[in-house]
Amino acid sequence: MASLLLKNGRVVTADSDAVCDILIDGETIVAIGRDLPVQADQVIDATGKIVVPGGIDPHVHLDMPFMGTFSSDTHETGTRAALHGGTTTVIDFVLQKQGHSLREALSEWQSRATGTAVGDYSFHMAVTDFNPQTKEEIKDMVAEGITSFKTFMAYKGALMIDDAQMVGLMQEVRKHGGLVTAHATNGDMIDTLIAQHRAQGKLTPRYHYLSQPEVTEAEASGRFADIANYTGVNSYIVHLTCEGALNQVRRATERNQRVFVETCIQYLLLDASLYGDDFEGAKWVMSPPLREQKDQQTLWAGINQGLVQVVGTDHCPFMWEQKRMGADDFSKIPNGHPAIEHRMELLFSEGVSKSRISLQKFVEVSSTNAAKIFGMFPRKGTISIGADADLVLIDPEKKHTISAATHHMNVDYSGYEGWELTGKIETVLLRGQVAVAGGETKVSRGYGQFIKRGPVTF
Amino acid sequence: MASLLLKNGRVVTADSDAVCDILIDGETIVAIGRDLPVQADQVIDATGKIVVPGGIDPHVHLDMPFMGTFSSDTHETGTRAALHGGTTTVIDFVLQKQGHSLREALSEWQSRATGTAVGDYSFHMAVTDFNPQTKEEIKDMVAEGITSFKTFMAYKGALMIDDAQMVGLMQEVRKHGGLVTAHATNGDMIDTLIAQHRAQGKLTPRYHYLSQPEVTEAEASGRFADIANYTGVNSYIVHLTCEGALNQVRRATERNQRVFVETCIQYLLLDASLYGDDFEGAKWVMSPPLREQKDQQTLWAGINQGLVQVVGTDHCPFMWEQKRMGADDFSKIPNGHPAIEHRMELLFSEGVSKSRISLQKFVEVSSTNAAKIFGMFPRKGTISIGADADLVLIDPEKKHTISAATHHMNVDYSGYEGWELTGKIETVLLRGQVAVAGGETKVSRGYGQFIKRGPVTF
Amino acid sequence: MASLLLKNGRVVTADSDAVCDILIDGETIVAIGRDLPVQADQVIDATGKIVVPGGIDPHVHLDMPFMGTFSSDTHETGTRAALHGGTTTVIDFVLQKQGHSLREALSEWQSRATGTAVGDYSFHMAVTDFNPQTKEEIKDMVAEGITSFKTFMAYKGALMIDDAQMVGLMQEVRKHGGLVTAHATNGDMIDTLIAQHRAQGKLTPRYHYLSQPEVTEAEASGRFADIANYTGVNSYIVHLTCEGALNQVRRATERNQRVFVETCIQYLLLDASLYGDDFEGAKWVMSPPLREQKDQQTLWAGINQGLVQVVGTDHCPFMWEQKRMGADDFSKIPNGHPAIEHRMELLFSEGVSKSRISLQKFVEVSSTNAAKIFGMFPRKGTISIGADADLVLIDPEKKHTISAATHHMNVDYSGYEGWELTGKIETVLLRGQVAVAGGETKVSRGYGQFIKRGPVTF
Amino acid sequence: MASLLLKNGRVVTADSDAVCDILIDGETIVAIGRDLPVQADQVIDATGKIVVPGGIDPHVHLDMPFMGTFSSDTHETGTRAALHGGTTTVIDFVLQKQGHSLREALSEWQSRATGTAVGDYSFHMAVTDFNPQTKEEIKDMVAEGITSFKTFMAYKGALMIDDAQMVGLMQEVRKHGGLVTAHATNGDMIDTLIAQHRAQGKLTPRYHYLSQPEVTEAEASGRFADIANYTGVNSYIVHLTCEGALNQVRRATERNQRVFVETCIQYLLLDASLYGDDFEGAKWVMSPPLREQKDQQTLWAGINQGLVQVVGTDHCPFMWEQKRMGADDFSKIPNGHPAIEHRMELLFSEGVSKSRISLQKFVEVSSTNAAKIFGMFPRKGTISIGADADLVLIDPEKKHTISAATHHMNVDYSGYEGWELTGKIETVLLRGQVAVAGGETKVSRGYGQFIKRGPVTF
Repeated sequence: MASLLLKNGRVVTADSDAVCDILIDGETIVAIGRDLPVQADQVIDATGKIVVPGGIDPHVHLDMPFMGTFSSDTHETGTRAALHGGTTTVIDFVLQKQGHSLREALSEWQSRATGTAVGDYSFHMAVTDFNPQTKEEIKDMVAEGITSFKTFMAYKGALMIDDAQMVGLMQEVRKHGGLVTAHATNGDMIDTLIAQHRAQGKLTPRYHYLSQPEVTEAEASGRFADIANYTGVNSYIVHLTCEGALNQVRRATERNQRVFVETCIQYLLLDASLYGDDFEGAKWVMSPPLREQKDQQTLWAGINQGLVQVVGTDHCPFMWEQKRMGADDFSKIPNGHPAIEHRMELLFSEGVSKSRISLQKFVEVSSTNAAKIFGMFPRKGTISIGADADLVLIDPEKKHTISAATHHMNVDYSGYEGWELTGKIETVLLRGQVAVAGGETKVSRGYGQFIKRGPVTF
Repeated sequence: MASLLLKNGRVVTADSDAVCDILIDGETIVAIGRDLPVQADQVIDATGKIVVPGGIDPHVHLDMPFMGTFSSDTHETGTRAALHGGTTTVIDFVLQKQGHSLREALSEWQSRATGTAVGDYSFHMAVTDFNPQTKEEIKDMVAEGITSFKTFMAYKGALMIDDAQMVGLMQEVRKHGGLVTAHATNGDMIDTLIAQHRAQGKLTPRYHYLSQPEVTEAEASGRFADIANYTGVNSYIVHLTCEGALNQVRRATERNQRVFVETCIQYLLLDASLYGDDFEGAKWVMSPPLREQKDQQTLWAGINQGLVQVVGTDHCPFMWEQKRMGADDFSKIPNGHPAIEHRMELLFSEGVSKSRISLQKFVEVSSTNAAKIFGMFPRKGTISIGADADLVLIDPEKKHTISAATHHMNVDYSGYEGWELTGKIETVLLRGQVAVAGGETKVSRGYGQFIKRGPVTF
Repeated sequence: MASLLLKNGRVVTADSDAVCDILIDGETIVAIGRDLPVQADQVIDATGKIVVPGGIDPHVHLDMPFMGTFSSDTHETGTRAALHGGTTTVIDFVLQKQGHSLREALSEWQSRATGTAVGDYSFHMAVTDFNPQTKEEIKDMVAEGITSFKTFMAYKGALMIDDAQMVGLMQEVRKHGGLVTAHATNGDMIDTLIAQHRAQGKLTPRYHYLSQPEVTEAEASGRFADIANYTGVNSYIVHLTCEGALNQVRRATERNQRVFVETCIQYLLLDASLYGDDFEGAKWVMSPPLREQKDQQTLWAGINQGLVQVVGTDHCPFMWEQKRMGADDFSKIPNGHPAIEHRMELLFSEGVSKSRISLQKFVEVSSTNAAKIFGMFPRKGTISIGADADLVLIDPEKKHTISAATHHMNVDYSGYEGWELTGKIETVLLRGQVAVAGGETKVSRGYGQFIKRGPVTF
Repeated sequence: MASLLLKNGRVVTADSDAVCDILIDGETIVAIGRDLPVQADQVIDATGKIVVPGGIDPHVHLDMPFMGTFSSDTHETGTRAALHGGTTTVIDFVLQKQGHSLREALSEWQSRATGTAVGDYSFHMAVTDFNPQTKEEIKDMVAEGITSFKTFMAYKGALMIDDAQMVGLMQEVRKHGGLVTAHATNGDMIDTLIAQHRAQGKLTPRYHYLSQPEVTEAEASGRFADIANYTGVNSYIVHLTCEGALNQVRRATERNQRVFVETCIQYLLLDASLYGDDFEGAKWVMSPPLREQKDQQTLWAGINQGLVQVVGTDHCPFMWEQKRMGADDFSKIPNGHPAIEHRMELLFSEGVSKSRISLQKFVEVSSTNAAKIFGMFPRKGTISIGADADLVLIDPEKKHTISAATHHMNVDYSGYEGWELTGKIETVLLRGQVAVAGGETKVSRGYGQFIKRGPVTF
């Protein structure tokens, strides 16, 4: 196996910060040290760079079937773009089709991802139809290394399970040591508000936002936590956006419950003032929608309080032409937003460079915590001996500007067009290979591997 | 400088877990790797051992003047016992004398600790008299590397400051980037209850406990958090024991505040049923007193929720003869309990071995978090390049029994006599030197160094 | 019209307490005074008696169709029994049949109640199928004097509406100045737990209780309050039983919301220890089930805190033979419990005589508050000029014992058999007529009138 | 004794609303009825008027010694002005002088009030120095009919007691069935902020406001509730102004505690925007200061939630010349604001006429609740047989304008100058005598009586 020596970087993890060398043998980190007295097949000088663990984005939707088409990033383009942004591992969602088995859905997703992904990936299993057959499959999925089970409390008739199914699923998942995650919004309330807005001819993207008020998320987050507490299962709320929802989690702590919380980069940085009077707001039509500035403050505080453990993206891009399917009706706009590529740079620039979070927190929420929660630790999420050599070199002072013209995601607009960031990801290693350098992708389609996962070790 | 190679241990930190070698040059870790191809002056085989960062106990009282005598562990005996239990760094409290300067107090403490400590140590400055002169000294203390300022909300007339002083101190400490910590109990309420119990002839140790009901701590914890929030200072509650107090912290999170929380090992493991009808309970006369089982559950949950960051000891031992000063009156019993030696083994055995917390959490709360909060990171609190080579080797399966007959603390009883633990600390390194091995102390009086500290980097 | 003079009673209302006379002309109170210098057709000496407003029980189910049979008290027997217990007005629930109109249901209920009720009554409309047709009927119901709309968050497929319907109903009811009430328990969770218990062969009444844990009520109560807050409608939770649910209401107050709360007499007095190993517990199979002693404490406190405004009964009696339909399966036991007759005596004896509540609170929660909330004030719920002469004379010291052998409800067991109470209702007037005296009913079938109701005036 | 017949008014109490007559014999109501067939010495036609119980203002400071002078309304002028505004009973504060007895203070206050008051009055005893001698006097005060004991958690060195005294006082008051009330603000924090503002030359009235931020009140309210809960005493917070403080009370309900809450009319209607850059703001220099609009919303909601029971005034007027003592230093401005006269008209106009509260709530919070809480019920606070004939006739549609030029308080400015109100108090009876009519005072200095009070009957 080839060896690689990364010299003289400022290596930062959730619990370290030191200028040193990292020696990689094949795919694995084998030594970390000051002036390591070794030879290597390849040497990279990381002087002046911050070296952090490869990012983990546990919330992406690649090549996801939708209304006869698919989200615009495939496992190839999506993981490639992720690599450019320092995210070396993603967790994609397999969506069970109601009336069909988990296995069937898994096979379908495997058929799209296997041999195409450039970066490493794993799968959550979204259980959209919990029944006696599904129940039997839970342990099989765990055996496959799929230990997290996603639920939707919205999208009735397509993805949503009711509370009866939720109880049953949680009980079964608990039995097998897994984790249940939730898209925690009240689908019934939202469906009603959507229908009312449509009936009133309120059809612009702004009404997408107004159809999902804070209460719809706060309510469902509390309900999810309540049921999880009753069943005793490990629980995780995906894409939490607002104060009301985080307060439900805070209150759950009073009964000695732990509920893991993921927010997404857009909820930390963007707010609902982007939903104006025209169709431009379609760029940020996602669910939940963007919220208010008070919610951003809550989320940054939540990170520092230890109550928000993960910053993901809910990356689910659609071409502008696809977005325009809802030009006359917000409810027909495909939900989603491209972010897989810029999560880490945005978080570094807005979080670390602006002193909202420490470098250690940056690593925790962009990588380490997701690895622990989703059972990939210590293989992923850290820089340590035996871990996969997934490394990201950041030039902390370098300024650059986000643009659809230069990004690698397969989508023709950016939600952050023109944002100037401080801190640029320059080189990315995935399992010992230089995957990105000098703006070029250095690994090929199919390099990405499926990562089997185990239980929570947080 | 001499080199030392620690071979083949299972090295566990807050964010790693790998079997590997650690190379130490002089006082410092210089390389970590698998089968490091190096020679060293000394080699220790750590096969089968868990290797964690040297413990940090940020709450100890050594050689503390009290009623004409002193707490029974000196900086020598106390830090030596600490080393035997894997705690390589302690933070002791300098107590300003009301009417006197901080500098004066610091000098007094330095005169006792300098040249005598066996393990590393630092100082918190307990501000018991905040006035214009004290105010001027805050920046001097920060310059000395003393960045944390302790307050007592109890012990009126001796240590307590009122809320007016609290506001002023917090404002000043904030200006200099420091941290304010609090013994958060309502001294006035407690003094009243003590006086009432004494007046009623209720004089056994049990009435010590009954004089400090949960409300006295919950109230003061909320008040401390309120004032800290108003001033914007970094805040930390020492020896938090109970649900009521932690709920105040939880509620403070709803206004986007972060309050650091320390509990102590005894509050996780012991409860108030130890205060019986005789004088035996004097062993656990400390402030706050032991609480109920529901509080233990809250504290364990708080650790896993990320709301309790540190497990210390409030080590403050007194010989049984000293305890007997209060044989006829609980209020005359010197407050305190010996724990500096067994904190890590107790936490490992009751926490890790019993699956209440993960190995990573064990490291976080016994070492890493304290290093970050108290400004010693990344020199202390982790196993990484450039860090002090403070290492603890644990035999995870080895059973042993706690007894005053065998412990190293200078106190003639144990609060845990006869407890059988799983997991034994066998070897301890401090700054590259084997400090403890085979039950023997390998470093001498005076080996311990004062550690200057900086700002919070959590 | 005939006149009646009630002399020398201790007249107690929510805001008065005076020994005086009450003069009634026809159905109406026309004067209250000390030694009123009047002649009357009839004189009742109330010396030594407490005279309170006729009780209002806003939660009864009379002659309710169920599994091919009916709840065992008709409007005749039920209101007659109510009168014996001092309850002069009840509000019964009309249950819309899913797929049918509100009007149809109302007609059906009217056909049973009209001309048969002995005491006064009104109707809540239970909306079990909110759709465009139902929406149109809301204003009609308000015009009929039916201003309160009941929802069930449980009993899926029979009575339950989902949150989508809840939003729509609340918006419509708000528009017409009405009130939405809820049976707030999570039906999906409960259905799951019932099915699991049955599948496990756990079939005794105790499993009815275990299928409806506190969380099922706390969750739904919070959800109901959330949606009500979003829509701005007046809201009321029926038969609230537990701390978890009341805490949701308390927290709703923090966002400046008011949610009215009704508990029932059984939740104040009985607890789940009555669900033993045999079928005896079927007597108390109701939904929600009886709870714990801590919940009783919460409810009494809630009354005194002003957060629980009403004490009703959820009277829904079934003969023991009917109960035995579930002899082999708790889920087949008709839900319900007879209480219409003893609510006021139980509350007086356990509340007033035991000093848990004041006489004024007794009147408020047994009568006045319900009159205000349900739009019958000041005609009902008080003793004042122009009000209906609904009066209850209590001998406050008289002891008596509850027994099925002597009660007037059409049910062959009592949930309180053998309870000895202090305070006996001796005489009851309804609209100026002596309805009950000396244990005899003095008014006939059909005397009871339907009471049209208006908006909340609380 | 002379008789008086009030004919045909719309008589409204906390639990009634009827057009009827009221017959008064001497000082007492003896009959209420429709077209009472009686003769009387005097007849007043109340057609078209709302007749409510005489108002009770439980928070006034009359003739209060201050810096060598006195608050500008004596018991004569103050109670006379109160009568003009429909407040027939006030409760004034006797202030113990530290180092002196309660009896001494009571004698001093009696010497000023006896024979001078025009309206009825009672006393709270403000305990500013709780010690063994004071403790002995508590039962004596209760025997005098002074059952409420005021504490100050601010004004150190003058009025403030510490938490030790608070515990002792509460225990003693509880023993004798009394009530402890608190000015709940953190005096130490406030003193510090005042000193800082002064040191910085920030001397305008606005800095009075900025020296008492919300936290100072929220903290102390929570602390007071905590200690009250521990001791089990009946507790009451005076002049609560803000969301933070009311939330502490709401949270106290979760542990089954009841804390009574009084707000004052100015906190419902005025906000801190009145503190501008000049000295004009001195008109509203009071403690606590005016707050924000969000706090007004909280207080109105609190009334409707049943959590705020009383609306008082904290009437404590000072002439503009007195206010100018602080022209160069806000801390020298005598604290207080004239409001005794307009409380009821303001509350009627802004509360009832603007549909924020019902007429019943208006009566509850302006009169009935104070009577119950402070042990004057049913003699005061209601319109019922045997009650004092304290009656207020309001012309509900009449508009009028507040002005210092026309008010009866002995103060040369109004805090509400130019406010136009809807609803005018036209006639006021106190114990059967017309006290105010046609804008004239009809009773004389000395007509007012001291009202002995008993225990809470809420």
